[in-house]
Amino acid sequence: MSAPQPQFPVIHGYAVKANGEAFVPWQYTPRKLGPNDIEIKIDHCGICGSDIHTVDSGWGPTHYPIIVGHEIVGRVVTKGDSVKHLQLGDLVGVGAQAFACQKSDCRNCQNSMDAYCPHFVGTYNAKYADGQVSQGGYAEAVRVDSNYAFLIPKEIDPQEAAPLMCAGTTVFTPMLHHKMKKGDRVGVVGIGGLGHLAVQYAHALGAEVTAFTTSENKRQDAIKLGAHKVVNIRNEDDVKQARLSLDYLLVTTNSKHTDWTLLTTFMDTSGHIILLAVPEAPVNFNAFALIHQGISMSGSLIGGIEQVRETLAFAAKHNIRPWIEKLPMKDVNEGIERVRSNKVRFRVVLSN
Amino acid sequence: MSAPQPQFPVIHGYAVKANGEAFVPWQYTPRKLGPNDIEIKIDHCGICGSDIHTVDSGWGPTHYPIIVGHEIVGRVVTKGDSVKHLQLGDLVGVGAQAFACQKSDCRNCQNSMDAYCPHFVGTYNAKYADGQVSQGGYAEAVRVDSNYAFLIPKEIDPQEAAPLMCAGTTVFTPMLHHKMKKGDRVGVVGIGGLGHLAVQYAHALGAEVTAFTTSENKRQDAIKLGAHKVVNIRNEDDVKQARLSLDYLLVTTNSKHTDWTLLTTFMDTSGHIILLAVPEAPVNFNAFALIHQGISMSGSLIGGIEQVRETLAFAAKHNIRPWIEKLPMKDVNEGIERVRSNKVRFRVVLSN
Repeated sequence: MSAPQPQFPVIHGYAVKANGEAFVPWQYTPRKLGPNDIEIKIDHCGICGSDIHTVDSGWGPTHYPIIVGHEIVGRVVTKGDSVKHLQLGDLVGVGAQAFACQKSDCRNCQNSMDAYCPHFVGTYNAKYADGQVSQGGYAEAVRVDSNYAFLIPKEIDPQEAAPLMCAGTTVFTPMLHHKMKKGDRVGVVGIGGLGHLAVQYAHALGAEVTAFTTSENKRQDAIKLGAHKVVNIRNEDDVKQARLSLDYLLVTTNSKHTDWTLLTTFMDTSGHIILLAVPEAPVNFNAFALIHQGISMSGSLIGGIEQVRETLAFAAKHNIRPWIEKLPMKDVNEGIERVRSNKVRFRVVLSN
Repeated sequence: MSAPQPQFPVIHGYAVKANGEAFVPWQYTPRKLGPNDIEIKIDHCGICGSDIHTVDSGWGPTHYPIIVGHEIVGRVVTKGDSVKHLQLGDLVGVGAQAFACQKSDCRNCQNSMDAYCPHFVGTYNAKYADGQVSQGGYAEAVRVDSNYAFLIPKEIDPQEAAPLMCAGTTVFTPMLHHKMKKGDRVGVVGIGGLGHLAVQYAHALGAEVTAFTTSENKRQDAIKLGAHKVVNIRNEDDVKQARLSLDYLLVTTNSKHTDWTLLTTFMDTSGHIILLAVPEAPVNFNAFALIHQGISMSGSLIGGIEQVRETLAFAAKHNIRPWIEKLPMKDVNEGIERVRSNKVRFRVVLSN
């Protein structure tokens, strides 16, 4: 069998070349297509908060030039010789992960926790074993390990599928991990890209959902999304009534001003606060805030293979869809600006 | 039946009368002995870190004069008419809790989480429903709800039983809650009053125990207590080798200088950090410290009725005993000073 011929020996996309600059057209030569890799012609890519943290070097130094984007949907156009589960032409999605080792001695890969594999390679701004920096989905194409390309269910519009790849699986993974169920009292802080999906997933699980926001004008949207109650964190009466009211609280905001001690007051005994976004300011609270009700605060990164599959299947079955704003890929700077200024309801999807 | 006649209509003890002052003899008139209450003639009382935080108003304003002490062992000398499970002369222990409602509509009391009952009354510095401030065990006697007086197993020396009432149950409760078991990798930060018991309990459960300390001179003691490994947090090589090595980490230190981000590096994926002490400085870390390995950080207060019973029974069965230094109750100021200067190996017990 002759080696497959990639269709994109050079990949054109939109990159930020240095901290503080805008996205500009740029091209790079991707790494060699390995036997388990595929090449995807990209149709759509969502704009995730992580993209902005990364181009800003907000989470640490970024490898510039950088093409971000890890809510990718497109068609398989080339596949390595070992790829069996995908066919040319398949519509697939890629999230925040492009590779894990999947070895038999990797505790995490063997326990459906491949999102925490020590050999994890992120879809962008990460280094493959060969030293090449991964580049993301604000582009015409991408190459990834085929394990991390997921068939998009037919029920889901491809553009709407994009935000499920990162935002969707990020919010649904802790629900699976904690086995959240009918009747659980689930709060969601921050009704944005992640939060508006978290409300929908929790609602579909049968939970009693409380949305927490600082924007009074998101109240109606939160209810449409499935929230049973809405708490405006700036409203003292709302805050008082929400005291001790939750079993789980998903924190999706990356505000630098989050009052962590206040969030703990919403938790009933043994409640779980789950951090899904990474603010650029430290988390800060008095230990007693966790101790006096036996509360836990945990982090959850993204989803691994099993969780991404369940995220897509559950969305297809329960009609969970992101609310999206559509822009052509070339207008990436406009899309980023809309996200920065907190104007988006609730996710921008760029399309080629 | 005539009302029982308390033996101590006035209780003499040692109190701090204002922040910054030493303990001095003081007396108070206890609340009326209720039908479910008992009066205990105190033989022994351990000195817990909480006692010092309280007399210092370190956790908030204290009601002075205050008699602290909640690791009490003594004899039942009077009992209310409804008390059936204890007899006059029984040797009992009292920990940090003196009352919970035990009502059928109290979710926490009905789920063995009575330590988090909304009507919780602490053994000292708390208010009973009638408004009286509770006073602790640095005294000749105490009155408590009989639900919170526990029979001391015969195998345990009464003086050694005292520290099990708070320190012991505080460290064993999260082990019960998380169902820690043989082979689990359990770390203990701080080898002191709580930590030296945590090492013993975890060892007796069959866990692989790692002790974390900043005092090189505690290394041998930690091993004698049952630690398989000792990590000196100030030793870079030790710290490096401990990376990703734990399933659980019990934090028993209340140092103001704890490096929380460093502690997270010791945790393997999905590991649990459990806070058992309340430093007077905030807990502080970057959210990513929890997110990148899916780690949780939780608080655990003390134990409820079920957990205290299991703490005592497990100690009796597995020969778990605190290492104690004995002082007469009148030397309370010397005992406190020894704890403050971090000289104690590992618990002071005051005796009448």
